[in-house]
Amino acid sequence: MKKNIKIGLCGLGTVGAGVATLLQKNAQIIQTRTGLDINIVQAATIDPYDHLDVDFSNIKVTDSVDDILNNPEIDVMVELIGGTGIAKKIVLDAFDKGKSVVTANKALLAKHSQEIFSAAYGSKGLFGYEASVGGGIPIIRNIREGFSGDKIDGFSGIINGTGNYILSAMTNERTDFKTALKQAQDKGYAEADPTFDIEGIDTAHKVIILMELAFNALFDFDQLYIEGITGIEPIDIDLADELGYRIKLLGKALNTERGFEGRVHPALVKKDSMLASVQGAFNAISVFGNFVGHTMSYGAGAGSFPTASAVVADIIEIGRVLSIDGANSVQPLGVPFERLKKMEIIPVEEIETEYYLRFNIKNNNQLPPEIENILSKNHVNIQQELKSNQTDAENSTSFVLITQTAKEKDVRESLKIINSLPFMASPIKLIRVDP
Amino acid sequence: MKKNIKIGLCGLGTVGAGVATLLQKNAQIIQTRTGLDINIVQAATIDPYDHLDVDFSNIKVTDSVDDILNNPEIDVMVELIGGTGIAKKIVLDAFDKGKSVVTANKALLAKHSQEIFSAAYGSKGLFGYEASVGGGIPIIRNIREGFSGDKIDGFSGIINGTGNYILSAMTNERTDFKTALKQAQDKGYAEADPTFDIEGIDTAHKVIILMELAFNALFDFDQLYIEGITGIEPIDIDLADELGYRIKLLGKALNTERGFEGRVHPALVKKDSMLASVQGAFNAISVFGNFVGHTMSYGAGAGSFPTASAVVADIIEIGRVLSIDGANSVQPLGVPFERLKKMEIIPVEEIETEYYLRFNIKNNNQLPPEIENILSKNHVNIQQELKSNQTDAENSTSFVLITQTAKEKDVRESLKIINSLPFMASPIKLIRVDP
Repeated sequence: MKKNIKIGLCGLGTVGAGVATLLQKNAQIIQTRTGLDINIVQAATIDPYDHLDVDFSNIKVTDSVDDILNNPEIDVMVELIGGTGIAKKIVLDAFDKGKSVVTANKALLAKHSQEIFSAAYGSKGLFGYEASVGGGIPIIRNIREGFSGDKIDGFSGIINGTGNYILSAMTNERTDFKTALKQAQDKGYAEADPTFDIEGIDTAHKVIILMELAFNALFDFDQLYIEGITGIEPIDIDLADELGYRIKLLGKALNTERGFEGRVHPALVKKDSMLASVQGAFNAISVFGNFVGHTMSYGAGAGSFPTASAVVADIIEIGRVLSIDGANSVQPLGVPFERLKKMEIIPVEEIETEYYLRFNIKNNNQLPPEIENILSKNHVNIQQELKSNQTDAENSTSFVLITQTAKEKDVRESLKIINSLPFMASPIKLIRVDP
Repeated sequence: MKKNIKIGLCGLGTVGAGVATLLQKNAQIIQTRTGLDINIVQAATIDPYDHLDVDFSNIKVTDSVDDILNNPEIDVMVELIGGTGIAKKIVLDAFDKGKSVVTANKALLAKHSQEIFSAAYGSKGLFGYEASVGGGIPIIRNIREGFSGDKIDGFSGIINGTGNYILSAMTNERTDFKTALKQAQDKGYAEADPTFDIEGIDTAHKVIILMELAFNALFDFDQLYIEGITGIEPIDIDLADELGYRIKLLGKALNTERGFEGRVHPALVKKDSMLASVQGAFNAISVFGNFVGHTMSYGAGAGSFPTASAVVADIIEIGRVLSIDGANSVQPLGVPFERLKKMEIIPVEEIETEYYLRFNIKNNNQLPPEIENILSKNHVNIQQELKSNQTDAENSTSFVLITQTAKEKDVRESLKIINSLPFMASPIKLIRVDP
């Protein structure tokens, strides 16, 4: 029964650094849940790494991935170099050596899926690629395990954060494509060469991976229809808005009676749809199953920490299988029973949030100043005030205050006093604001 | 290596009938993916079942759950009776006999979590309870396996479809609580006794389950703060709207430095937030991890088929473990390699969708009728038309047509003809509408 899982990390860029940070920062919680000690024993990089917030005292750093491939103590090879060159060789070699592999490399999986999956299935090593689509969103697990009983009819998603950031900026700030792209580059959301993102190629890579998973088949990347967002003009965003739509870059696939559709292109989506409300660099994928119906998974589609979260979830799953002693690799509550402590919930009086307070005031055109005074004395401050334009049968008027973050205890104490004042037509209505 | 998984089904109500239907309708796809034949061999019900769309020729129906508990060939006991009476006995007895258990019973898990999980951990049977929270949404898997490397900081969700249906109706139709409740009951979204839903108790059951899973601890149901939606008045919905909010019934928990918060109450959420756009009987749960950041899972929170999807996903996972011959219980693409066929993607010309077509017309105040004629001849019909109020430097005007569903081939054929007409100031802009 293996309890020490030894990781070889190829690549110490954005995601690699995130994985190293997570494994160190959350080591205790991972150990508690799984009983596993997961450590990076060796890392390969050709770039400087001294500036990273990672403790390298137990990590041997090399500039050659071969050192990792040839290190017999390594259980899991984590490939975070990207691209289809050296990364392909590393993954195939690792499977050949019977090592498990975790990767975030969508281009590799999309362009060489037959070769990579063939090697994965043929190896005694296990394979995790959750981070290849949707960053930290567990979309691979959702389709493969969450909807394992469903025929998947199709999916449709915003799976390129850069493209969505640009379209969101064009929509919210009425800028043109070039300005929005420049802004995305300045803020680090788009690379110096943004071709893969703005031409829809990155989205297409992810569509192929999701299609293979959802439809349990292999596909040719070259058969996908791919259209990017470079042709979207402000006038289209304006006119779509007037018609009740937002423009989003969608990756979409359908399992139809006539065969499989697969395509990437900008699309108008209804403003009140879930996908329309996905802003900035976030991702969301709608999946349609013949029993589960419409589902959607949302989260950060890229970035160091969210992508690291997905990489580490894959490492943990592989660690669980490698450490199996009984049949049940995942505990019902995600942690062994003896580590489940009984815990207390804090009384609601102790919570802090914002509050909507509605005061129904007799015969009055304005909110009596006593109210704010009492609230203020009890450390409850106001951020917004509104007077209702409705007057009820008893000629009383409703005023709303939205408080700043305050203690429930202080709010209740204030309301008790205010409720006893003579100008109150009915008890104060309290609704908590979820910030 | 077990390939036939035999199910005993306790309860043939809404969800039980859905599970039986799914296992029969999707038997072939489940067999292809997993190699498993999953069959209900015995079902217990005290109600009529002849009207169900289920083939009972190979299912023995009994009116006594003891017949199922005492049937030695049954691998997985599926408990869909609900409540904390007979259901509790069935689950504990099944674990005691070493049978695996799948349940959708949130009340049972919330009120007796210590007893139930203690029995589950102590049994050689496995335990699935994905359907107990969020219907078809794989929220249990997401937290337990998708975010297994994250410290979960908290979650906040709309996890009661009835309550959300009522609040959505009050918001969209400006009705009062009683009218909306009556409407929910008439449409089958609320039960004759709606207490559990409108008083927040059903939400609270689910909050306790998610807290135990997210925070890897056990909690007391009685320590939760619970407030329902019966006190929400139309004026609060109106005033919240003016202030930029919607009112939703939230189940929320936080892991703070001071301890664990857990609460259920109506809350104002910002209109442009993801949770605000959750309409009707749908559910959505935001989960916050210390590395993954903000994620959200959305889908049908109840109903026969979505809940059946979650129950069957649990059955399949248990079946996979029972049938394990190697270490890797889930195949990388969810299906054995030899069943992965290479498939074709349909050329984009063959797809059918709606189209946004923008025509830039020279010196013209209206859309030349030739355009609609040409489209119509090519079977492309119009559902919406809009004239831009912007005129560009060359004094040309943009007109938009949104088509009804049409073939891409027909649209392209029409545009080729129209683009050659003398009044066109620039090529037509085509953007697909995602219906």
